[in-house]
Amino acid sequence: MLPGVGVFGTGQTVRALVPLLQKEGFPVQAVWGRTQEEAESLASELDIPFSTNKTDDVLLHPEVHLVCILTPPPHTRQIAVKALGIGKNVISEQAATLTDACKMVTAARYYPQLMSIMGNSLRFLPAFVQMKRLLGEGYCGNLQVCEARVYGGSLLSQSYGWAWEELMGGGGLHTVGSCIIDLLSHLTGRRAVRVHGMLRTFVRQGGPAGGIRSVTADDYACFQLLMNGGVVCSVTLNFNLPGTDVHEIMLVGSSGRLVARGTELYGQRASMQAQEDRRSWVRHPVSMAASFEDGLYVQTVVDAIKRSNRTGEWESVEVKIQDVDSNHNHRTLPN
Amino acid sequence: MLPGVGVFGTGQTVRALVPLLQKEGFPVQAVWGRTQEEAESLASELDIPFSTNKTDDVLLHPEVHLVCILTPPPHTRQIAVKALGIGKNVISEQAATLTDACKMVTAARYYPQLMSIMGNSLRFLPAFVQMKRLLGEGYCGNLQVCEARVYGGSLLSQSYGWAWEELMGGGGLHTVGSCIIDLLSHLTGRRAVRVHGMLRTFVRQGGPAGGIRSVTADDYACFQLLMNGGVVCSVTLNFNLPGTDVHEIMLVGSSGRLVARGTELYGQRASMQAQEDRRSWVRHPVSMAASFEDGLYVQTVVDAIKRSNRTGEWESVEVKIQDVDSNHNHRTLPN
Repeated sequence: MLPGVGVFGTGQTVRALVPLLQKEGFPVQAVWGRTQEEAESLASELDIPFSTNKTDDVLLHPEVHLVCILTPPPHTRQIAVKALGIGKNVISEQAATLTDACKMVTAARYYPQLMSIMGNSLRFLPAFVQMKRLLGEGYCGNLQVCEARVYGGSLLSQSYGWAWEELMGGGGLHTVGSCIIDLLSHLTGRRAVRVHGMLRTFVRQGGPAGGIRSVTADDYACFQLLMNGGVVCSVTLNFNLPGTDVHEIMLVGSSGRLVARGTELYGQRASMQAQEDRRSWVRHPVSMAASFEDGLYVQTVVDAIKRSNRTGEWESVEVKIQDVDSNHNHRTLPN
Repeated sequence: MLPGVGVFGTGQTVRALVPLLQKEGFPVQAVWGRTQEEAESLASELDIPFSTNKTDDVLLHPEVHLVCILTPPPHTRQIAVKALGIGKNVISEQAATLTDACKMVTAARYYPQLMSIMGNSLRFLPAFVQMKRLLGEGYCGNLQVCEARVYGGSLLSQSYGWAWEELMGGGGLHTVGSCIIDLLSHLTGRRAVRVHGMLRTFVRQGGPAGGIRSVTADDYACFQLLMNGGVVCSVTLNFNLPGTDVHEIMLVGSSGRLVARGTELYGQRASMQAQEDRRSWVRHPVSMAASFEDGLYVQTVVDAIKRSNRTGEWESVEVKIQDVDSNHNHRTLPN
């Protein structure tokens, strides 16, 4: 029998995911919302038997064996660590900070028999599944350069919230850049050795509802990753382009290239014969999901990019779990 | 009466330019080629009365008052400086090195009554003329980000030549990057204060005709310019993409954006109404041409990008004509 699922969060992702889980036969048993009203409303909308605004009520629910944490970044670490401690399997959105990612990995390592997966669904997009397969088959020859561009409108919420605050996991680098960093490491099988980055917050005032609050989260990020094996990655994120919707990842090698635009994959070999690729679904998806270790890697790169933005220099990427000052960049947030 | 023109070089640019000059009524009096045969062949093809492989024969020609230097980078400085010394007006392709650009500016300053113009024709492309006009009229609001991308096939010549050698002005940064740097400064009216860059030579072997020679010129360049006033420019050049032909410049501001793709200009205001722009020609073109001072600025930025690629750090851009060690990066080349 499939495990019962408890869901944290009431946003768009939850609305999209729960019906899919139910369709696949997962009994979604409980939902947590920031307020009782939000939780109840979602529960009745999505036909979930139990709703609450207390995290423990979901975590300790006897029918819940798999916890999906789809909350804003400031909440994920606390819930994920507690869930693993109680013996529940976890799929989680990313943490707000490197410190939080470390704590999540520590918990995941402590309970290795439990599933601990990061919710980066880009890895499962058919275009990228196919891209990774073709790259592995040598379609591009020796990989040289990866380029990623994401352009869009503002990421800010109408009123003040975590999306405005860098330290709460807001900004293009955290929310979108993290997914790209994870995807590049997944596609290429390589990890960043050194990074260089430049972050900007062009829009400092989020709107009249923000009052005196000013935005600290970046709306422009341009960074380079030097991967092991000499591969160069260049990523540009710009969220000052309302009405635009560019999502492009290009891999260039010695004998060909692959470009994903939106959900479509295009390939071109050095023989210069363009072809549009077929798309296919992978059947055993968990094997390629991002682990909490992958999540820590991503947070380490994000942290190094921020450091590089401050120092102006290339910064080394050293994934380590010790020596992270838990007071650094860390805020305790109300549950 | 329009001045007589002497042309240096026998390449594609000469073949395109000479008929245009003749059509506008400029008598093209003399052409110089690397060999007498090349010069003679071009002269008969383009109906030019005099041809030679000796630079002085063109420079001292009594009917030549304007000299167009359309040679590879290693030759430009020598011819330009001599031409100004003899009292001829000069339009020149860029120099191979910063040292050469300094020498050209010194000569231009010494003969301020003579015309000294860099041959960066991108400034005159109708799309960019219109782009600059619209930007000046406030179309984009406060300018925030400029992005430029140029993708294409290899820049290398079939057999060994200047295009293989970084120090002879070869490579994407020198040949294409210089034009982009000049264009960005022209369009925005701002200059780079600090730069950061990353250069790669992925193709080290130019082909069987190259023998033991290996390529030192970059085929991939990714660099960022911090302009005065807080504008950020990000430029990516990749010449490992045979069969591709992407030339894109995007200016993003607080209230709109302008994108030039190839020769077409697109604009979008924050009101989200897309419009395709009309194209128009400018009638008095010399006023907006790049001066040798502009050429020196470009070479200074190129030099700083190379320095940044070596040091891994942001490098300051200080345009100065003194203190340039004339032995640095400089090779004397046979005429």
